[in-house]
This record gives sequence, C-alpha cells and structure tokens, in this order.
Amino acid sequence: MTNGWAASGDEPTIASVGEEQAIHAFTARLPESGERVLGPGDDAAVLAVPDGRVVVTSDSLVEGPDFRTYWSTPYDLGWKLAAVNLADVAAMGGRPTALIVALALPRSTPISALELLADGLADACDRLAPGCGIEGGDLAESPTITVVATALGSLDRRAPVTRAGARAGDIVALSLGAGQSLGDAARGLMTLAGWPAEELPEEGFPSGTFIDAQLRPVPPVEDGVAAVYGGATSMIDVSDGLARDASRIARASRVTIDLDSASLLAIGAVAGRAPVGGVAELLSAAEDHGLLATFPFDAALPGGFRLVGTVRDLGISPVLVDGEPLAAMGGWDPFRA
Amino acid sequence: MTNGWAASGDEPTIASVGEEQAIHAFTARLPESGERVLGPGDDAAVLAVPDGRVVVTSDSLVEGPDFRTYWSTPYDLGWKLAAVNLADVAAMGGRPTALIVALALPRSTPISALELLADGLADACDRLAPGCGIEGGDLAESPTITVVATALGSLDRRAPVTRAGARAGDIVALSLGAGQSLGDAARGLMTLAGWPAEELPEEGFPSGTFIDAQLRPVPPVEDGVAAVYGGATSMIDVSDGLARDASRIARASRVTIDLDSASLLAIGAVAGRAPVGGVAELLSAAEDHGLLATFPFDAALPGGFRLVGTVRDLGISPVLVDGEPLAAMGGWDPFRA
Repeated sequence: MTNGWAASGDEPTIASVGEEQAIHAFTARLPESGERVLGPGDDAAVLAVPDGRVVVTSDSLVEGPDFRTYWSTPYDLGWKLAAVNLADVAAMGGRPTALIVALALPRSTPISALELLADGLADACDRLAPGCGIEGGDLAESPTITVVATALGSLDRRAPVTRAGARAGDIVALSLGAGQSLGDAARGLMTLAGWPAEELPEEGFPSGTFIDAQLRPVPPVEDGVAAVYGGATSMIDVSDGLARDASRIARASRVTIDLDSASLLAIGAVAGRAPVGGVAELLSAAEDHGLLATFPFDAALPGGFRLVGTVRDLGISPVLVDGEPLAAMGGWDPFRA
Repeated sequence: MTNGWAASGDEPTIASVGEEQAIHAFTARLPESGERVLGPGDDAAVLAVPDGRVVVTSDSLVEGPDFRTYWSTPYDLGWKLAAVNLADVAAMGGRPTALIVALALPRSTPISALELLADGLADACDRLAPGCGIEGGDLAESPTITVVATALGSLDRRAPVTRAGARAGDIVALSLGAGQSLGDAARGLMTLAGWPAEELPEEGFPSGTFIDAQLRPVPPVEDGVAAVYGGATSMIDVSDGLARDASRIARASRVTIDLDSASLLAIGAVAGRAPVGGVAELLSAAEDHGLLATFPFDAALPGGFRLVGTVRDLGISPVLVDGEPLAAMGGWDPFRA
C-alpha cells in the first residue's frame, strides 16, 4: 500500500506519537468556521446559528465499499468526504457552515496521511463552501479506514427545499459542477476499475481525466442557495443515479417526473474526451453529486441548472423518459450491488 | 457470534432487504427531537436552535478497540453510543437536543440487530436526556462494526462551561450517575476480560453488576446543566480516567488540581459489592463518564456532585494527590494502550 497511506521508514505514525499529538497534527491544518463560537479541543464545540435553525446531515466513506487506498490518496479521501457532505446541505438550499469529522484508522497510519486528509478537507471547504470550517470530531482505532462527516448548515432565513414540493407543470433541471458532464464519476470509476494493478501511480492519480470526478468530486454547492432564489420547489443531491434520485422526488411529491433523453444526452456529452454512454447509462450513473431540482414552468433557471424534463401528474410510474415508463430503475444500493 | 449480531436461519439481513428498507427498520424505532423542524428522510434534517448557538461533538465506537460483539449486544452498543455523546454535551453545560447516527455494518447484519441498536439509542435518550431525538445519519457497509454519533445540544441562553475557567481557590467536584461508584466501568471491563469464553451468555449480560457501567453507562447528563446553575467555572467528561481528565482542566485553566485521596476512596467504595481498588486504580479508571467540575469555594454543590479536591495556583505538576505530584499519569489512549 503506497499512495500516502503507508508509513515509510521510521516516519511517525498514530501509534508512535499517540492520540493527542495525532489529533493536533490533523486539526492544526483545518479551516475555522465563520460561525465559530468555541472551537474544537473541549468536550464539544459551539457554533453560532443566527437563523435559529440548523441543517444537519451525515455521510460516511468506508475502505472497500466506498473507496480503495490504491486509488484514493488521503488527500482525495478528505476532499471527497467534505464534498459529499457539503452537497447534501446544498440540496436543502442550505449554506454549509461546519463539518464534524470522525476518523477510524489503523494504528499504523502515518501522521503525514492525517495531514493530507486534513488538507483535502480544507481545500474542498475553501473551494466549494468558503466559510465552512471543521469544528470537531473524533479519532478512533480501526482495521478498516472509515471516515464520517456530519455537516451543519444555515438556511439564512429561507425555507428549506425538500423533496416533496414538486408540482405538476414544474420543470426539472440539473446542475453539475463547472465543466462536468453527466456520468463523469461513473466513467472515472470504470477507468479505475480497468487500470492494471501493476501500473497504479504511487502518488495518486493526476487530474485532468474522468477520474477527478470519482476521486475529487466538485458538486455545485453554491447552486443550492441559487436554486432557492430561483424558486426551486424541490431538490435532491444526485448520488445514486438520476433515475433513482428523480424517483425519490417523484414519490415524496406524489408526481411523475418525465425526463427528456435528448437533454440528458446533451448534458452527458463530453466533447473530445470519450464516447457518450446511452441514456440507460446516464440514468443509472452514480456519484455525480449534481443537484436535481424542480422549478415553476416559467422560472429562469439559476446558476448552472439546465432543463432535463417536466413534472406531470402522478401516473403509473414515478419516472418516465420521453413519456415512456422506465423498465428497470438503475442506481446504486451499497448493500445490494 | 451470537448476542444478537448474527442472523439465525433465514432471518432478514441488510443484504437481503436492501439499504432503504434497513434504514426504515432502524429509523422507525427512534425518538423524535423536541426541536425537530424537518425530520430525517430528506438530504438533511433541520433542527430548531432558538438559542442561536449549537453545541456539537462526536464520538465513535469501533468493534475491537472499543467493544466486542461477544460482550455487547446491539442494544448495549446503541445505549453506550448515545450515553458517551450525551455526556460530552452535558460537560459543556448543554442540554442534548439531537443525535446524528452513522452506522457502518457488515451486509450480513440482521435487521433485528439494527432494531435493537435503535432501541438502545432510544432508551438511552429517553432515560438520560428526555427530548433528545435521533435526527438523521447514514448507513454504510463495512467488515468492521463502526458506530459514530454526532450530538447537538442547546445552551438555552447560558454560557458554555469550558475546561479553561478553573481558578485557584475553587473546589473540585465529581458527579457520577445515580448509584455509581468511581471505577465501576473499569471494574466491569476487568470482569468481562476474565469471563471464560465458553460461558459467555448468548443473550447479553444481565444487569446488576459492574458490567452495567461498562456496557450501558449512565452518565449524569442532567448534572451538566445543574453545574451551570451551581456556578461551575470549568467542567469535563471523565472518560480517560480522573487523573488525565483533571490534568486537561488544569492545563487549559493554567492551574494545579489537588485531589483528595480520602474523598476518592469514599466515592470509589462500593458497599457490599467488591473490594475497592487503591487510589492509583481510581485515578486511571477509564470510561466512568462522570462529570468533573470546579466551583467557587463557597458554592453549594448541585445535583450529584461530591467534593474531591481543590484548585491551586499552577505548580510543577498539573495534578496532585494530597498535595503530592503524581508519579505516573494513568489514563486511556486507544492508540497506545
């Protein structure tokens, strides 16, 4: 195991420096929340919530099912952990204010890996949600690398955008990160899965390919708040594939969502990079972490949102493509896949 | 593996019912927070924070280092996960309002184990912090059973009690759960460690012994708020042993804490249950999850707090016993133990 996860020589590890010093090495590199009242280091942190309501969500990444140490560097893992949690706050129309990060790592983990993990978390917060800081967490020992973040966010006096507000007649729109195409993360995973084991780069994968979207996703976090100002009636983070997540809005809102295949293919088209998959592939491609939202039919789509369908009265199927029912609903179930 | 962790016969498991149904089985048994605005089931939950500040902390339990499936039932694990997190909120003078619970479990985990875990969480909240609910979380797949909770709490317009406010002349006091003695959790762990493997009870350990304090701790959560009204100048959750946690207050407050051995022995004495350990044992006994606090010298001690020492000007050692420096600082470091 290389890629930053294994200690080289007599490099200090969590076991050699002890828990307190390891925690210090990690937290010293983390950004502070703009809402900090009392930072980490006591039994708990205290965060300002001027709005009087806090958005809260949690997402985990576990070695094996969710990431591989020979694909993801500690930096990649920290980045992705932040990104997937920030996306969930954005999907409520919230502004992320803080992450609480619980790490469970082997005793042999080098301190340098902890520092890279911190840098990935820090850079993702700076890039995706400026002002969001890491305000506490936990370090435990485990044979299985497990990282869990809980994200807090503010609604800044706005109403939350749930999955339940779509109305027949609304339009359906998707925002991906800047420069992203629908299905990039899934294409990146396929690329990684096909990579010869003996040719894996020791220092992690360089950027510039679909692999970026898989290892270091860039969800359109700011479009969460933009969607609220654009009048969004419902919203969801697209992590399990467009068909499955669209069906979640449809079921919660008791409507049918009719997706337009030509629009999906256009958003899935990647000029000069690789062949585009079919509509079925795009519907089931997981982990894009785009925002799928519905808006009133006459709304001007905000931010990076692009039209992908319309909302209809509830019919026999929660999701249609070009007016036809989906035969099989794709998507990602970690316990079934 | 029995004790509720293994599926018997064709009992449904996470793998057989799938992620969404497994999550539903778990969440259906959980209590709702008194501060709920929008419950779990969307991308994030929304919680009321009328105070304008939120207390937040996270603690994890990992199979192996933190618990064993042949000692702890899923119910025990849920209880302890709630208890240790609620204690951290209490140690800030906070009132716990919600837990966010991330589970990483093997695919083979029976749904009945998820239900028991939920019941343990629910019962601990009801008993220790009524009104605190579980408002979201995550279910991931892992070969290593890992449970992480993030606790949120309210200060209800009061100032937080940190580790940094102790002043020379203050008195030092300890609150344990009702009926608890100092060192019970460590005695319980010793009892478990000495239990013959072939005689482990299949349905978990019955209550009525020190094992309770180890598997299902009852921290004095309500004494956290009581301490604030009693004028507490500093406070900490005693999870790593009294000496080590007292030294944390001493260092943060730049004072020396002088513990009184006779008081410790009195609080460690267990009438008619087992011989009492020496002072050294009591100073290093981990996981009691009592609250150690300092109060003005003329304060009437609130709740279950009992006098255990005095605060002095910073001397050569952060912690003294009967005025003498501690030769070795006991306590629990998961990466060093």
